[in-house]
Amino acid sequence: MKIRRANKEDVTAIVEMLANDALGEQREDYKLPLPDSYYRAFHKIDSDPNQELMVAENKEGIVIGTLQLSLIPYLTYSGGLRAQIEAVRIHENYRGKGLGKKLFLWAIERAKEKNAHVVQLTTDKKRPKALRFYESLGFKGTHEGMKLHI
Amino acid sequence: MKIRRANKEDVTAIVEMLANDALGEQREDYKLPLPDSYYRAFHKIDSDPNQELMVAENKEGIVIGTLQLSLIPYLTYSGGLRAQIEAVRIHENYRGKGLGKKLFLWAIERAKEKNAHVVQLTTDKKRPKALRFYESLGFKGTHEGMKLHI
Repeated sequence: MKIRRANKEDVTAIVEMLANDALGEQREDYKLPLPDSYYRAFHKIDSDPNQELMVAENKEGIVIGTLQLSLIPYLTYSGGLRAQIEAVRIHENYRGKGLGKKLFLWAIERAKEKNAHVVQLTTDKKRPKALRFYESLGFKGTHEGMKLHI
Repeated sequence: MKIRRANKEDVTAIVEMLANDALGEQREDYKLPLPDSYYRAFHKIDSDPNQELMVAENKEGIVIGTLQLSLIPYLTYSGGLRAQIEAVRIHENYRGKGLGKKLFLWAIERAKEKNAHVVQLTTDKKRPKALRFYESLGFKGTHEGMKLHI
């Protein structure tokens, strides 16, 4: 498995993975051609030096995983940088092979390289398996993740 | 109360508020002159168009509150922008007067102006009063907020 920055040609494969999930299918609009809103968002992500949208590809060059790493500067923790992970998926045909763990270990190393002091994420309480996966990597559920849809 | 972008001259007052708290005092290094790391972080925040570090000041121009609003572009939710709130404080002499609510209502309006679809935050489970405050504003604790200190 190779992990690399996503490019515009990967957007369709990424959105297909985001949509292929009980929660994701309710909020994504996966159809071909893909709605322009996804490409506009890709451009914003790709042109922001604090966003790293990543894909994992297999030996055949097929995209089989994705995550987005965001680096956020704060005054808190003596002016510390935080690394935040969101939009994580492994293609359904490639689950249960430890690829998610590899992708996360990459992200944690990348956060260290960037001198972040913490890696953070929120996970929907409706995903108990995801919660256990994150705990197995050393994440602690010390916080409530609160959302207000506007 | 006036809400405005923070400038370099506000950093001391902001860090004093961040440090004046049972959790904050363990992780901030508030002393005068302020450690350079705070000014380096302020520069990163101030030069990033997706970060809005805000202060609230009273009629005398004294800084009595702060929060940081971050706008993060994602492919999820059909390429939706998220607004994230962190590093919220009201000066201890000005609590219980509804100023935190005013500051939050400002942030929610700002998130709408920016076309964000959600406002999100995480709150330490050791702060039950903060949790009830966010719930009173309509936030739902649907997610676990997970941290890995590195």
